[in-house]
Amino acid sequence: MGVHQLKIPPWLRGCLLLSALAFSAHAGSSQFPDAEASDPAALGWMIGSPPPADRILRFDDGSYFRFPQMRWSVANFRQLMPTVNVSRGLTQPSRLTRELRNDIDALTFVPLGGSAPMTWEQSLKANYTDGIIVLHRGNVAYERYFGVLRPEGQHGAMSVTKTFVGTLAALLVAEGTLDPKRTTAHYIPELAESAFGNATVRQLMDMTTGIRFSEDYANPDAEVWAHAAAGNPLPKPAGYQGPRTYYEFLATVGPEGEHGQAFHYRTANTDALGWVLARVTGRNVAQLLSERIWSRLGAEQDAYMSVDSIGTPFAGGGLNTGLRDLARFGEMVRNNGRYNNQQILPPEVVADIRRGASREHFAKADYPLLPGWSYRNMWWVTHNAHGAFMARGVHGQTLYIDPAAEMVIARFASHPVAGNAANDPTSLPAYEALAQHLMEIGRHTNPPPPSTPPPGASKSHAPGPRPG
Amino acid sequence: MGVHQLKIPPWLRGCLLLSALAFSAHAGSSQFPDAEASDPAALGWMIGSPPPADRILRFDDGSYFRFPQMRWSVANFRQLMPTVNVSRGLTQPSRLTRELRNDIDALTFVPLGGSAPMTWEQSLKANYTDGIIVLHRGNVAYERYFGVLRPEGQHGAMSVTKTFVGTLAALLVAEGTLDPKRTTAHYIPELAESAFGNATVRQLMDMTTGIRFSEDYANPDAEVWAHAAAGNPLPKPAGYQGPRTYYEFLATVGPEGEHGQAFHYRTANTDALGWVLARVTGRNVAQLLSERIWSRLGAEQDAYMSVDSIGTPFAGGGLNTGLRDLARFGEMVRNNGRYNNQQILPPEVVADIRRGASREHFAKADYPLLPGWSYRNMWWVTHNAHGAFMARGVHGQTLYIDPAAEMVIARFASHPVAGNAANDPTSLPAYEALAQHLMEIGRHTNPPPPSTPPPGASKSHAPGPRPG
Repeated sequence: MGVHQLKIPPWLRGCLLLSALAFSAHAGSSQFPDAEASDPAALGWMIGSPPPADRILRFDDGSYFRFPQMRWSVANFRQLMPTVNVSRGLTQPSRLTRELRNDIDALTFVPLGGSAPMTWEQSLKANYTDGIIVLHRGNVAYERYFGVLRPEGQHGAMSVTKTFVGTLAALLVAEGTLDPKRTTAHYIPELAESAFGNATVRQLMDMTTGIRFSEDYANPDAEVWAHAAAGNPLPKPAGYQGPRTYYEFLATVGPEGEHGQAFHYRTANTDALGWVLARVTGRNVAQLLSERIWSRLGAEQDAYMSVDSIGTPFAGGGLNTGLRDLARFGEMVRNNGRYNNQQILPPEVVADIRRGASREHFAKADYPLLPGWSYRNMWWVTHNAHGAFMARGVHGQTLYIDPAAEMVIARFASHPVAGNAANDPTSLPAYEALAQHLMEIGRHTNPPPPSTPPPGASKSHAPGPRPG
Repeated sequence: MGVHQLKIPPWLRGCLLLSALAFSAHAGSSQFPDAEASDPAALGWMIGSPPPADRILRFDDGSYFRFPQMRWSVANFRQLMPTVNVSRGLTQPSRLTRELRNDIDALTFVPLGGSAPMTWEQSLKANYTDGIIVLHRGNVAYERYFGVLRPEGQHGAMSVTKTFVGTLAALLVAEGTLDPKRTTAHYIPELAESAFGNATVRQLMDMTTGIRFSEDYANPDAEVWAHAAAGNPLPKPAGYQGPRTYYEFLATVGPEGEHGQAFHYRTANTDALGWVLARVTGRNVAQLLSERIWSRLGAEQDAYMSVDSIGTPFAGGGLNTGLRDLARFGEMVRNNGRYNNQQILPPEVVADIRRGASREHFAKADYPLLPGWSYRNMWWVTHNAHGAFMARGVHGQTLYIDPAAEMVIARFASHPVAGNAANDPTSLPAYEALAQHLMEIGRHTNPPPPSTPPPGASKSHAPGPRPG
């Protein structure tokens, strides 16, 4: 169901994106034009001097996030709203070696819940893919761009943002700067009266808080709308009485259930965690991400984040990155924190992510397509035979790491349905099939010889492949 | 006089920056706090989670551009408004060699209209410098940052933007894509009824059009306010009846005097020229700048431009760049268009800039501090003994190229007075003194040996220095 059909005032509709979410309900997408018919390059949004009136997209009236318009917007958010830079620093980009495989497009798999096989290439259209890259042993084995996304562009990572924030938190925990057993109120007294107050930092990090935060967009009274209104950087309408910033919103969140009993995917947890990180480090999450991760990866592009009216980066979903840089981040994590000749994350942070959290807590959230998974440090952990784990953002944003297959997949997409249950059936089994395929190849080829990579090269120091 | 003291509605004040200008009147700056007292890092704008209420800067109420607040804003425009990227591409940055000179700070000169000498270092404070870099023969001889600007940050280039647009136009003229003798209406029929209609492209490029465009901020009816309102990316207030985009504004501009008779510095000319470039190339000026210049320089950072509500980059003043990248652009021009192992501009474009335009036309504009200068392709040409030429932006933004001294100076500043007449007296003679100094050194040292630079190195292929 399109948000533009809801009875939500236009200025608020404009904020939908600002609340990246994961619908657990599975909505069909058959009522939407397909990938080709919705191709944003072919539709010519914002092209021309001036663009034709029916090809202009605006933030304030919400037109930018209707479908298929949003297929342009996800690759151009900064043209629609204020943003803050996540600097790559001024170093040389780390080198990504490139040896493309021509056997991936024809790979077949059976979609979840389906019976007829589908090819990898078909899945890209089914998922409204804007860009996808596959690293195998750190080498670029596959890379495609569609619509208006280019290698030198940036795309909204949506809730993949959360994974960066959770990883930064885990890094500070490992360093002893942040105590996960402390309450949120210990760090943020302003949240003492809110439902976050007596939740621990660990409960924020694993989203096991009991907070009232409905992301039911069909309900104009859902908290997600108040969250969006608070975070909207535009001037508030006359008579607006609600919270005016992300922080003010967080202070209004009330309790629902008990902390620590179940996984509840709630964007507000990440915003609260971002606040904790900012208070502890004196840096907002954009600065922290730049200093601790982005500038050390040898990223080839700056990333950026959307901000609220007082400059708070949207920790729950505001990050935009280049596709290859997202893959670099994944490759760093796959290599236990080592990349670009640096130990960027302590290995124990990655180990902690991979171990995951309580699968019992996760099961209570009822994701039929994600059986046996858990959620740790804002990563989705499959607990499958390969030990794969993921970052997931609404409309199909993905970072998928398969340690056994030595594979990293980064994907940006603009699927019309605002819930990953709509694209998981044609994504997850495709990733598993590709992992299997690469492992079979791996059995017949030697791992790359160990060598001292030149400065700036992206080759990792990780051990060779495991036995398949 | 501060704009916040004028009777201008707050939402319009917010656009002041969007109309970079050069006041010809020389306003004193003694009523403003000095560089130290106005240091934006010390004042702590936008620091904290959340920042204290009196340290929050907003676009929509104009607070971001009051003094001294604007000293933070000029280095953070993208946090305040939507912007479009000017991609550096994905190549390795070109290398800037570095051999700092420790004799520059103590260099003395006599300010224009003064009698007491001042040191180079003192001039930096007098001019509220945010960052300054000096290249001598392509080598970094001097580099300083102040306040909140960092090497990895970007700063508003204000009307230095015009110089990029004029240079792009000159490039298209040299390639035969753009005919400078054609009228504006030939390329943009929408401007046929405006004063631009029968002006030639050359008249736009050299700002000799006769158009009614007052940049008198003290007058609420001045066209500059209508321009600012049109370009403001925020939703228009209820009841607003004026033009809603830069393009719509341009169509309303009426005549004043005759074309081709005198130099009149009017921001609207550059916006009209940007429109012509967009129509001719099918690229907006941000895309064109990236494709034709920025991505070929080996820039180390993306640049960006502010945009209006339909995504039109502000050609008259919306560019933001890293300081070193601005210097790279200057070094490319100094080397007759060759840089980073590429001929980026045809040498005849640079020759045409250096020849300048009619000094008689320029004299009619009455800039007492710029005697004998001219304005060509949106560059300010000194016609001094060194053949120096400049890009100039309000509040002190500068790119100064001295071919005889083989010197390029790039400076970002946040001088409280919105007219370069306020900072020229302590800038222009300082640049001349440094040029003289470097030439004297040059007499005693050999030019760098000619060599084949490695790929990606920034060493130019230009001939050695001229005899001093």
